[in-house]
Amino acid sequence: MAELSERSGVPAPTIRYYLREGLLPPGRLTSPNQAAYDDSHVRRLRLVRALLEVGGLSVEGAKGVISAMEAKSGNEFGVLGQVQYGLSAGRSPSVADLPPAALEQVDDLIARRGWRVRDHNPARASLASALVRLQEVGRDELLAALDSYADAAESLARREVDELLALDGDEVRAEAVVAATVLGDAVLSALRRLAQESAVAQRLAPDESHEAST
Amino acid sequence: MAELSERSGVPAPTIRYYLREGLLPPGRLTSPNQAAYDDSHVRRLRLVRALLEVGGLSVEGAKGVISAMEAKSGNEFGVLGQVQYGLSAGRSPSVADLPPAALEQVDDLIARRGWRVRDHNPARASLASALVRLQEVGRDELLAALDSYADAAESLARREVDELLALDGDEVRAEAVVAATVLGDAVLSALRRLAQESAVAQRLAPDESHEAST
Repeated sequence: MAELSERSGVPAPTIRYYLREGLLPPGRLTSPNQAAYDDSHVRRLRLVRALLEVGGLSVEGAKGVISAMEAKSGNEFGVLGQVQYGLSAGRSPSVADLPPAALEQVDDLIARRGWRVRDHNPARASLASALVRLQEVGRDELLAALDSYADAAESLARREVDELLALDGDEVRAEAVVAATVLGDAVLSALRRLAQESAVAQRLAPDESHEAST
Repeated sequence: MAELSERSGVPAPTIRYYLREGLLPPGRLTSPNQAAYDDSHVRRLRLVRALLEVGGLSVEGAKGVISAMEAKSGNEFGVLGQVQYGLSAGRSPSVADLPPAALEQVDDLIARRGWRVRDHNPARASLASALVRLQEVGRDELLAALDSYADAAESLARREVDELLALDGDEVRAEAVVAATVLGDAVLSALRRLAQESAVAQRLAPDESHEAST
C-alpha cells in the first residue's frame, strides 16, 4: 500500500477510499495483512484521480466510466464516448427543455460540417443551450461566427484524437480524454482571454512600441 | 416600471432589486409614485443581467464593472479589461501559489506570440494552473500542442475584438464582452466535444457510409 501510494502519488487514505468504493480492484493477497499491487493498479489510480479531481465526476459517474471500460462491450469508440459523456453528466440541459429551433441549428451545423455525432451526445444540448442564450442577449454576430468556432474546434479535435489513438491501453486513453477535454477547455479559455486583451491593445494603440510590433 | 420591465424583458421585482443595490441608476421622478426610464436604463439592465446571469459575477463584482465604466477613467481598454477581469474574479488561482516555472512557460508563450498582455491579467494564472495539472497527469502531448491552441485562440480573438469595437456604447460593448467570453467558452467547449466524437468515428470506421464521406 505504501509503495502503491508512492508510485501513484495518491495518498494511502485516498487509495483505501477508492478500494471501498469499488473504483480500484483489490490487490492480490500475499498474507492476511498484505496485498500486492501491480502496474494496472497504478494506471487505474491515475485514471480515477483524473476522473474525480480533474473531470469533477461523482463517484457514481466514475464507476460508470470504469464499468464501461471493463465490459469492453463496444469498441474504443464506446469507451471514449462513455468518458466524454460522463464528464457532461448532470451539466447538460435536457433536450426536452430546449426550443426545437436551437437544436435544429445545431443539427444543421453538424450536417454542414459532415460531423458524425450521435444524437445523445450531451454536447448537442449544451451547444443548443448556449445558442439560445446568445440569441437572448442579442449577440447575433457571435452566432454568425459559429463556423469559425467550428473550424477551430475541428482542427484541435483532429489533433487531439490522433494523439489519443496513438496511446496504448484503455485506462491511459480514458485518462487522456479527461485531460484533453477538461484541461483543454481551461487552456483554451485562458488563451482566448489573453489573446483578446492583446487584440484590443493592438487595435486601440497599434503604434505602441512592444515586441509585438517589431 | 411596467414598461421598463416589458422593454428589457427583466421582471419588475428583479429591476427593483437592481435599483436597491445601486446597479441601475434611479429613473427621473415624474410624480411621487412615478419614475421615467429611458433607453439608457434598458441598456444598463441588459448589461447587469448579462454580468450576473451569464457571467456569474457577484453583485459586488458587477458594481465594480459598472463603476469602472462610469468613471471612464481609462479608455475603452480599461473598461473591457475590467469586465474581463471581473469575470475571472475569485476563480483564478493566486500567482503566489503557482510554481514559477509554470508562469514562466506562460510568459514565454506570450512573448513568443508577441501578445500584449498585462501582468495582472487573471488568465495568466489560470493558464499556468492548467499547465501544472496537465504536467501532473502526464499529458505532455497536450502541452506540446499549446501553440495550436494559441493559434485557434488568436484567430477567434481577432475576430471577436473587431466585432466588439464596431459596437457603439460602453454598455453594449461590455455586455458583448461578457457574451463573447462566457458564452464563447461554452460554444467552443461543446463544439470541441462534438468534433472529437466525429474525429474518433472517422478514424475508427473511415469507410462507414455517412454524409461525412460523400
